[in-house]
This record gives sequence, C-alpha cells and structure tokens, in this order.
Amino acid sequence: MILIQIHRDVSTPIYRQIIDSIIKLIEEGSIRVGDPLPPTRILAQQLGIDRSTVYRAYQELYSMGYVESVPGSYTRVRKRPKIALLKDRYKGALVWKEKSASRSDLIYQTYLHYTPEYDSSKDDSEVINLSQLDLDAHLFPLDDFKRSMSQAFDLQGEKLLCYGSGRGYQPLRETIANRLRMHGIAVIPNEILITNGAQQALELILKLFTEPGDKVVVESPTYANLLPLLRFYLVDVDEIPMREDGMDLDLLEQSLDSRTASFLYTIPNFQNPTGISTSQGHRERLLSLCEKHDVPIVEDGFEEEMKYFGKVVLPIMSMDERKIVLYVGTFSKVLFPGIRIGWIAADEECIERLTAIKRFSDISTSHVVQVAMYHFLQMGYYDLNLRHLHRVFRKRMQIAIQAMESYFPARISWTRPMGGYTIWVRMLFRVNESLLKETTSNRGVLVSPGSYYFNTGDRGDYFRISIASLEEDEIREGIHRLGLALKDLQEIMECLESKEG
Amino acid sequence: MILIQIHRDVSTPIYRQIIDSIIKLIEEGSIRVGDPLPPTRILAQQLGIDRSTVYRAYQELYSMGYVESVPGSYTRVRKRPKIALLKDRYKGALVWKEKSASRSDLIYQTYLHYTPEYDSSKDDSEVINLSQLDLDAHLFPLDDFKRSMSQAFDLQGEKLLCYGSGRGYQPLRETIANRLRMHGIAVIPNEILITNGAQQALELILKLFTEPGDKVVVESPTYANLLPLLRFYLVDVDEIPMREDGMDLDLLEQSLDSRTASFLYTIPNFQNPTGISTSQGHRERLLSLCEKHDVPIVEDGFEEEMKYFGKVVLPIMSMDERKIVLYVGTFSKVLFPGIRIGWIAADEECIERLTAIKRFSDISTSHVVQVAMYHFLQMGYYDLNLRHLHRVFRKRMQIAIQAMESYFPARISWTRPMGGYTIWVRMLFRVNESLLKETTSNRGVLVSPGSYYFNTGDRGDYFRISIASLEEDEIREGIHRLGLALKDLQEIMECLESKEG
Repeated sequence: MILIQIHRDVSTPIYRQIIDSIIKLIEEGSIRVGDPLPPTRILAQQLGIDRSTVYRAYQELYSMGYVESVPGSYTRVRKRPKIALLKDRYKGALVWKEKSASRSDLIYQTYLHYTPEYDSSKDDSEVINLSQLDLDAHLFPLDDFKRSMSQAFDLQGEKLLCYGSGRGYQPLRETIANRLRMHGIAVIPNEILITNGAQQALELILKLFTEPGDKVVVESPTYANLLPLLRFYLVDVDEIPMREDGMDLDLLEQSLDSRTASFLYTIPNFQNPTGISTSQGHRERLLSLCEKHDVPIVEDGFEEEMKYFGKVVLPIMSMDERKIVLYVGTFSKVLFPGIRIGWIAADEECIERLTAIKRFSDISTSHVVQVAMYHFLQMGYYDLNLRHLHRVFRKRMQIAIQAMESYFPARISWTRPMGGYTIWVRMLFRVNESLLKETTSNRGVLVSPGSYYFNTGDRGDYFRISIASLEEDEIREGIHRLGLALKDLQEIMECLESKEG
Repeated sequence: MILIQIHRDVSTPIYRQIIDSIIKLIEEGSIRVGDPLPPTRILAQQLGIDRSTVYRAYQELYSMGYVESVPGSYTRVRKRPKIALLKDRYKGALVWKEKSASRSDLIYQTYLHYTPEYDSSKDDSEVINLSQLDLDAHLFPLDDFKRSMSQAFDLQGEKLLCYGSGRGYQPLRETIANRLRMHGIAVIPNEILITNGAQQALELILKLFTEPGDKVVVESPTYANLLPLLRFYLVDVDEIPMREDGMDLDLLEQSLDSRTASFLYTIPNFQNPTGISTSQGHRERLLSLCEKHDVPIVEDGFEEEMKYFGKVVLPIMSMDERKIVLYVGTFSKVLFPGIRIGWIAADEECIERLTAIKRFSDISTSHVVQVAMYHFLQMGYYDLNLRHLHRVFRKRMQIAIQAMESYFPARISWTRPMGGYTIWVRMLFRVNESLLKETTSNRGVLVSPGSYYFNTGDRGDYFRISIASLEEDEIREGIHRLGLALKDLQEIMECLESKEG
C-alpha cells in the first residue's frame, strides 16, 4: 500500500496532489518499475474522494510516461528513459559558460553593479529609499484600471487574447496620437509603434540605426539603463556634458563636426538623472545642429506630462519638419510600471521598419494590457490621475527642496527641477563612491550613486535623489538622514585629508 | 464667437471634445495669436454644459501651451513656438533611412516577405487559412481567464501594477517548474526566466551565446521566425536536413567535427513546420553528440503538451545531466497568443545572465498578465483546457489526414504528426512557389510556402498546413480546395514541361 496525503485546505487540486505524491514516490524509489498502483476504487476509498479524481490523476501520469496500463490489469510503474534528477546535478565546467559571448558577460557585470537599486524583494522597511524611480504605489488608480480591464474583456471577447497588430492596438495608437497632438506633435496613428515599455523602444532604435563601432551621442550624465545597451551593441559612446540648460551645444557641434553619429539621445524634460529641463532656445539650436549634420534625434519624453512648475516647453519633435526626431514615450512614470507599455512616434515608414524588428524580438506587445490601457485613457481616468499626481508631487518636490535647504551641510549643490521626480546632487569636496554608500547606509537611507549615469570615468562626487516612491514624511526624514550622512562623509574626508597632509 | 460642436453620444469626454475643437481652430488659423477665447461662463451657456467642464478644458489648453491667461482678463491664444504641422510634412530624403543599418534593412525585407501570413486585418472570410498557427479563438477559455485576472487584482492590490521581479513572478515560476517536473525535467523555480513569449526567449539566447560570425546549427526546415533573427545577429547558419526521425545525426556529427557551434536549436515534438516528433533513441544520440562537442542545446518545447496520439517521449532536457540544455516553453500554442508569456529553463546562473540581458531589453514581462496566468494555472483551468484541446485536435487532425487522403492527387506526400497542428507537404514534381501561391489563391485557400522555413535555397516543392485556427468543416473544405489547387498546379506544370520538351 502506498501513502498519499491529501490537503483540502490548499488551492492545489486534489488530482494534482495525487500526481505529485506518486511522482515523488517513484523518484525516491519507494515505488519501482513494474510495481502496480492501487486500483482507482481502492485509492479513492482510502483517501475518501471520488473515484473519477483518482482516474484523472492516473490518466495524467500515463500521459507523462510514468505508468502504463494493460487492459484488465493493474496500472504499473513504467520503465522511463534515464532521467536527470536534481540530486545528480552536474558539478563540472558548464558548457553555457564557455560559450557565452564576452559582451553578454559585460552586460551581466553592469547588472550586478546596478542590482541593489532594483531589488525590491530586499525591501528593508527601516531604510528610506531615495533611489527608486517607481511611483508610490498608493497613488495607483487601481480600481479604475481594474474597471478598464473588465471593460476590455466585455467588449473584445476572444479577440482580446489573440495576437494584436504588430504595431499595437489601433485605438490605443489613436489615443496616443491625440495626446501627442496636445504637446504640439502632429502624428497619425500609423506613426506610432507600441513597445514593451520605453526600454524596448530604445533597444529597437539601437537595432535600427547601429552597427558595431558606430558613434552615438548622449548627455552626460544620462539614463542609466541605456548605457549597458550601448555597450552591448558595441557602439562608441560620445558623452556631451550637461550644463545648467542641458547638454553643452558648443561641444556637441565640435563632436558632430569631427564625426557624424548614428543618433543623438536626449531627455529634454526633467532629465534623468539631473532633473534639468531645457529651454525653447536650447531645443531649437539642438534641432538645427542635428538637421545640419543629418543626425537623427531620439527624444525621450519619459515624463513629458509631469511638468508641475512653470510653463510648458514643447517637445523638440513639435518643431521637427524634416522628420529626424524619433520620440519615445511611456506610461510607466505617471501610471504604473508593471504594465510595460511605451511607444515610439516617428515617420510612418520608419515605424514600419521598427515594427519588423520588434516582430522578430517578441512578435507583439501584450494585447490584453493594451486594450485595458486604451479604455483607461478613453474613460478619462488618465487625465484625472495626472492632475492628482501634479498636485501631490508639486508639494512633495517643494518639501524635498526645503528639506535639503534645512538639513544639508555646506559644500553641497543640487538642481531644482520643474517637474518629475529626480534631483541631482553634487558634493563640492573630494569623495569616493564607496564611502558615500557606507555613510548613507549607516544612516538608513539609499541614494543612486553618480557612477550609474556616466559611461566612463569615476564620478563619485554626484548622486541622484528620487522622490517618486515616497510620501511627504518619508521624504523629509530621508533627506534628514541624508544630511547627517553627508556630514559624516565630510568629517571622514577631512580626517583622511589631515592624515595625508 | 467660435463654433464648437459637442457630441454626447460618443465616449470622448466633453472637456476633451472642447480641447480638440479649439486646437483644430487654432491650427487652421480660425483663431489667431492674441485672440481671446470666450469666457467660461458664456461658452458653458452656449453649449449647455457645466462651467467647470469648460474651465477644465481651458486649464488643459494652458498646460499644453496653447493659451495664456492674465488675471482679470480673457484667456487668449498664445504665441507658440514654431510647430511642425501634418500638412507641412517634409518630402525630402529622410535622415533615418540613410542612417539605417544594413542588417535592419535585411530584417525588414524578410518581414515584408512573411507578412501575408500574419496580417489578420486582411481577414478575407472567403479564403480558408491553412497557414495560421494561432489557435482557433472559439477554444479560448475566456471566462476562466477573466476570473483569473479578477483574482489577480483582488489578491495583489497595488502590487499588481508594480514592476515584478526581473526573472518573473515567483509563484508562476514555481508552477511552471512543477509542470516541467511532470515532463521529467527537474528544475527549481530559480532555474526559470519568464519571457515575452518564446520569440523573446530565442533572442535572449542568441544574445547570450553569439558574436557575429559564430556558427549556429538548426534543423532544415526550421521555425520561420528564428531565421531573420539569426541573420540579424550575423551568425553562420548550418542547416542539417530533417529525415523521418528528426535531423540527420550523421551530418550533424560531421558538422560538429569540422567546427563547433555556439548552440544547436531543435524542436523535438511536432517540429515546426514538419510536425515530426523524434524518438527516444534520436534524442539520446543528439544529446550525447552535443555533450561530446560541448555544444549547448536549445530545446524548443513550444507544443510539449499537445501530444494527443501515442505515448509521450520525454524532452531532451529530462536526460540532461551536464546542464547543456536550455529549454524554451510557451503558453501561446495551448492557450492564447495575445498574453505573450514564455519561459526559459536552464542552469540557475545561466538564467541569471539571461535575466540581466532581458533587464536591458525591456526590464521585465508584464506583471499583471503573469499573475493572472498563475491563478489560471493554479485553479486547474489550464489542465481542463488542455484535455479539451487534446480531444478536439485528435479529431481535427484525423479529419485533416483523411481529407488529404481523399482529395490530394498523386505525387504528393505528407507527414503524419503525433500532435500539434502542422503537417508538412511535399510535391514530388517540379514546381515553383509563385505558381503554388497562384493556384491556391485562385481556389480560395492559403498555405505557408516552404521557403519560409529554409535559410537558403529555393525549396518551392514544400508547403506547410496548419489546422490550428480552423474548425472541422473548414479543415475538410480547405483541404478539398487545396487538392483542387494541387491538381491545377500539376496540369500547369505538365503543360509547361510539354512546351519546353
């Protein structure tokens, strides 16, 4: 007789519990090849369950090759081919490792370097996370999104679960085109490709434009997650330093004069990490420089709609008559990151090429989620939510800036963003990143070290603050702690210097 | 006075209609810079709506830079910076085109060649589509999935909309690991990475293993969507011909003896396109050949669970003690393609590297959908559905094979699959692909031409039939039409040959 325990208080169906138990008994060797399983009637009685449940489990075991049955006889354990069991795991050199390409190694090293910021499983509630750029989940319009999802099911039926169009759900593209028109960008729905978030949009653009050795121009510092991609695609990264009003255009001109580029990447609003928004004049000159040198502009409008101080400056693409701008957008930073919906707006034929590239990357973006998102926008929830976020973050950003003024020691400077979530801080004294990490960690606060945002060079004198995920009190307390950490750091540095001196 | 029309019977909110109308009037030049907008009170009266609605529209127009307001005065149209309007679209040479990399051109050409098969918008109900590999949507367990989605919202709350873990939702990975165990593959959840469908899984693996010029071994014919990816990654593709029991292992041995490979790609069950399933013996020899040559095996189990005839043969990975197998799975072919969930099972550290690569491709797979999928599996809906599909397709495949026997002319041979949806047909007479397309199209039936599945060479004598999306009567009628088309084709070829002769 074999021993099987059934639990009625778990969600695993009973027939599945029987299957799992029998497989375990076989794999342990408690039941051997040729041994009969108990007749379904007997096992059903023994377990106090319906016979059909046992029958179903046996059928499944049969189809998995564990048992065989001869008409009129017992179901017996079958001789299965050699199976590699967990306990026999191979300990020798692994082939996949030898075969890994060096550029994939390189991306892995970057990943390990970044990981702490992203590992939300290590959610230590004692530490205040001024590093995370994910929106405070309390601000998610969850019920509205649930309603939108429900509507998607009701209106679309089975179609909801088919592949959608490779370019993305047509009504969603229409809605996005309408929103972009509000920002002065005149596009039609066929000039939009829906992507798996802005990150995928950037990779598709890299695939469209670059061959190994090509030059790509970025702001310095720039979006941290772009840098490993640039390294993976083996391009030459030309970093143009950020000034108070965006990238240094004189240096850009020199750079383009000396060698053209596959594209230029810029974040004109609330640049990540600096928080800087460029002026109308800066945007005009940047556009005309790129027009003159025939360099496509990739304009990342990841927080386009998060302007809550001052007047709006329109996107570069709003002035783009020669269609050299590819505009990247996302809902991740004003709604919820978990849905993974971004887009590229560009010339229609260019979008068609990008669609082809996406097709062989992942066929299409999850249709279910796109349809839900469309209803969410259509019912006006997005606008409501955006206005709410503006109110909330206008206040939170003010609190952050005030707290920095109160709590930060001397010889620290920082940017004053017109919107978005990030502030860029510079320490005007000699320091290194590991000491910064140590002092902040000791004071129970987490920031993003400057090195994440530079392709080359040791820039330990910068760090980024993000207020995206924190409430007012947490922001105040976090910055208080940060101020203490910076004082600690200054003392340590002075001490070190006096020793050296 | 300005003219605005409001429609109450559409889903666009009224304030948005006002915004759209005013932007249109401004862009047309009907209202000019400096012109006042009507006071909110007046416009509200005129339109018979609430004043707050007009106010909201004006606020939005302000934030978009279209209007400005001075306290105590009218809201006036503002001088906006130069805007590129749709009507002024540039007609000159486009920079993005000049800058496109040649390998992205190449992928675009392949895309155009494939497109007819995938363009579901051109859904001509007169034509019977024996080309599509998407499951018949009538078989989708829509209500069950809707319930699963609902449960995901109820149980997870706001967390549902956050980024999930880069590796994928832990409970879903556990469930998949359990399912793989049922197929003799002993993996733990951390040995699984959730991807955006199987297509993304394949690209991640290419990124992990290959540099330009590396060799990759595939079956010939093979999965059509892999070939453009291989071309994009600039690898040398070594095509090993398929025999009745899978790829020719003698030729494989010669190939590996002459030069090792970055990896070998195989679909052991119901191979796409041939429908062939390899024997236990073939799998064992394939594994030992790759072990001997240190070549990772990428085993595509895209229809692992769609075996509905005969006994199960276990996956190659079930015998893999040296961890040289990376197993790719998907829910697209047994559930619904629109959710985009696939996975890779491999050595834990290998999965971590692949997670790093995915991180910079698209951060993570849509969390919402993963959680819903987990509940779907957990509640037993998946198993129920699978059993149902087996019953349905056992019958449909029998019908297809019988119909081929009845309706096909002589000099045609085809495979007899043990499961899945595809049948591979060979015409044992000289023929070319465009003639095949013409005769099938004239008879109102669509098949997938052989050339999709070969990397090189003109293989106009093959085509693939898929019964995935069709009901019994459609299968019978489709194959009837196909039989007529093949007779037409034979006659045309005979006529051509006699002329030549």
